[in-house]
Amino acid sequence: MNWNAYGASLLETIRSSKPLVHHITNVVVTNDTANVTLHLGALPVMAHAVEEVAEMTAIAGALVLNIGTLSKHWVEAMVIAGKTANDKGIPIILDPVGAGATQYRTETCHRLLEELSISVIRGNLGEVSILAGLGGEVRGVESVSAGGEAVDVAKTLAQKQNCTVSITGKEDVISDGTRTVLVDNGHQWLTTLTGTGCSSTTAVAAFSAVEKDPVTASACALMCFGLAAEIAAPRAKGPASFKTAFYDALYNLNTRDIEQGGRIREFS
Amino acid sequence: MNWNAYGASLLETIRSSKPLVHHITNVVVTNDTANVTLHLGALPVMAHAVEEVAEMTAIAGALVLNIGTLSKHWVEAMVIAGKTANDKGIPIILDPVGAGATQYRTETCHRLLEELSISVIRGNLGEVSILAGLGGEVRGVESVSAGGEAVDVAKTLAQKQNCTVSITGKEDVISDGTRTVLVDNGHQWLTTLTGTGCSSTTAVAAFSAVEKDPVTASACALMCFGLAAEIAAPRAKGPASFKTAFYDALYNLNTRDIEQGGRIREFS
Amino acid sequence: MNWNAYGASLLETIRSSKPLVHHITNVVVTNDTANVTLHLGALPVMAHAVEEVAEMTAIAGALVLNIGTLSKHWVEAMVIAGKTANDKGIPIILDPVGAGATQYRTETCHRLLEELSISVIRGNLGEVSILAGLGGEVRGVESVSAGGEAVDVAKTLAQKQNCTVSITGKEDVISDGTRTVLVDNGHQWLTTLTGTGCSSTTAVAAFSAVEKDPVTASACALMCFGLAAEIAAPRAKGPASFKTAFYDALYNLNTRDIEQGGRIREFS
Repeated sequence: MNWNAYGASLLETIRSSKPLVHHITNVVVTNDTANVTLHLGALPVMAHAVEEVAEMTAIAGALVLNIGTLSKHWVEAMVIAGKTANDKGIPIILDPVGAGATQYRTETCHRLLEELSISVIRGNLGEVSILAGLGGEVRGVESVSAGGEAVDVAKTLAQKQNCTVSITGKEDVISDGTRTVLVDNGHQWLTTLTGTGCSSTTAVAAFSAVEKDPVTASACALMCFGLAAEIAAPRAKGPASFKTAFYDALYNLNTRDIEQGGRIREFS
Repeated sequence: MNWNAYGASLLETIRSSKPLVHHITNVVVTNDTANVTLHLGALPVMAHAVEEVAEMTAIAGALVLNIGTLSKHWVEAMVIAGKTANDKGIPIILDPVGAGATQYRTETCHRLLEELSISVIRGNLGEVSILAGLGGEVRGVESVSAGGEAVDVAKTLAQKQNCTVSITGKEDVISDGTRTVLVDNGHQWLTTLTGTGCSSTTAVAAFSAVEKDPVTASACALMCFGLAAEIAAPRAKGPASFKTAFYDALYNLNTRDIEQGGRIREFS
Repeated sequence: MNWNAYGASLLETIRSSKPLVHHITNVVVTNDTANVTLHLGALPVMAHAVEEVAEMTAIAGALVLNIGTLSKHWVEAMVIAGKTANDKGIPIILDPVGAGATQYRTETCHRLLEELSISVIRGNLGEVSILAGLGGEVRGVESVSAGGEAVDVAKTLAQKQNCTVSITGKEDVISDGTRTVLVDNGHQWLTTLTGTGCSSTTAVAAFSAVEKDPVTASACALMCFGLAAEIAAPRAKGPASFKTAFYDALYNLNTRDIEQGGRIREFS
């Protein structure tokens, strides 16, 4: 498979078809993830009222469930939105922000994974390791330790939940339990900003709206996301000027960039 | 009327009198709209607790009600704040974000329009068309189609609700049902960022705090807002560097810029 | 005491130990304060669900309680988190945003001050004056007038509440009621952006996580915060380019900058 050419074509499809990406997400990253959605070419919407999430989800191309600042009514809305998504065949991307840091977060993830059919879980190594039952430590929303290497951890959770798992880090690992793909794009500057993990989840959702295979959607999304960071890095004088350059680069990312710079490889 | 000179004088009045603009708004744009308020020279405040919105509204020069991420208690707070505003003669600016996308949003707008006396509705063409009963389609928060041309749609809703309606787009249309004014300022970059519609609503509110005529307040606000975007455009390398330049330009906007660049004309 | 050398060493300690700073804060500044936490070298987390705030607070190095967009359940969460912090000896930094603007805000502050042992109150002159019982006026979140000079106002509240009080302004005043320290770093650009007061509170919290004396922690935090603003100012063409430069400067701030530019002095 020519990953770069295919990833570039998916990005073009997002830009021409402008799928709606519905977010029930945390209050830290709402603005950032809405902008990332737009810069990739998709349309963002945020809604969390139980009165409307089913209707809003029904017209979306993908649904993001992000537990970063969860509370009772928002979780209720996630379940309602998620059931609509499942009924309509709309992919759900779950971001288990801070799973393992508190019981409430871990239990909410398990509840969502039990009641809904999730397409992709996108998290850091600690979060995924804890959800996989392999142990690990998450301090706040930061991965501190895990019960194994990323490839094994991703595979374990993917097999357990029968979904695709994307662990972002120095190298991103995507696995559906059988097939595993690695993405080597990205830049250290991403770690100096809040919400870049959540934003990568949004990218996975935008690509999932136009690509049925969740491994392919995740890999191409994370390649484009990471590549934009690489393109932006030379303009950075610090995290904020990096952020400006990164968002500009996401918007300006083109086929040539991707064909030259994408670094996806099949692991198994 | 010399619109440019008058608009420039209103901006100076905002900067010298620093009116308080109270927002009950969505969680995506809180930070952006607070900054836009400040950069124009007014003072922003955000509060949504039913326990305090009446008291906070009572000291404000204008009230923004924005339904972008509404929920039950926030709507309740909007009604309470709105009644105080009406009692005190404080203008209310309604942003019907996503009206038409879900029944809950459409019905909430109708409820607010019924229970409160609204000064200005600022929305996109699809949202306004749906509220006017002319049909149309809104996907998430994006206008897809409408039941007529912007001038007719604005007039229809203005007459129906006995208020001023501002539809922003390539050309902005402001109508109170009798008098219609067009603003030709603005830039395509505004469409690449989340929350610029909401921010234009905030600008209308800041101008409404110092100008009693809602058509004049809206037109001058949208002229200044659009003009800052034009001034910023040459510095843009993408949406994020545009945003930086745009906010800088709002803050730096001066009488000479407005006298040279404002493009308001009476349509009827 | 060599304030500059000591302040620089505290910043190094934050960067090497990466303390977790738990925020229950307003929806306007969540993204900004998370980034400021990261740029200083600490780890931010935001959580407000009553189900998890105790557990999240228990692993934090400091707790920020910011009432900028308070509501019933968030106040309840603040009390629960605060009690855990007190039990564990974790410093609480209170930001009384808009105290005095509404009764609800003033009463909530008094409740938090009564039920919890607060380490530092960081506010503007009007807010602190009102909490001290000295009168004053706060319009929205802006200090309009106060019942005395900053030094006296800070001392009064510090003695009354048996805590440290930091009033930020042209010159920052920090007092525990006995000892008073002044910080002369900062820049006028900070007043053109929303949330810079809240962000300075976050800085105080990050320093409080690594320094037990609240006067020292506050003074060194506000010195670093203000110094980054001074370093950024020459790059500003307006508030937004200032913000970018300021965040970059916070991240890049080093020992030499602090030794050359810090301006703390003991007042009494």
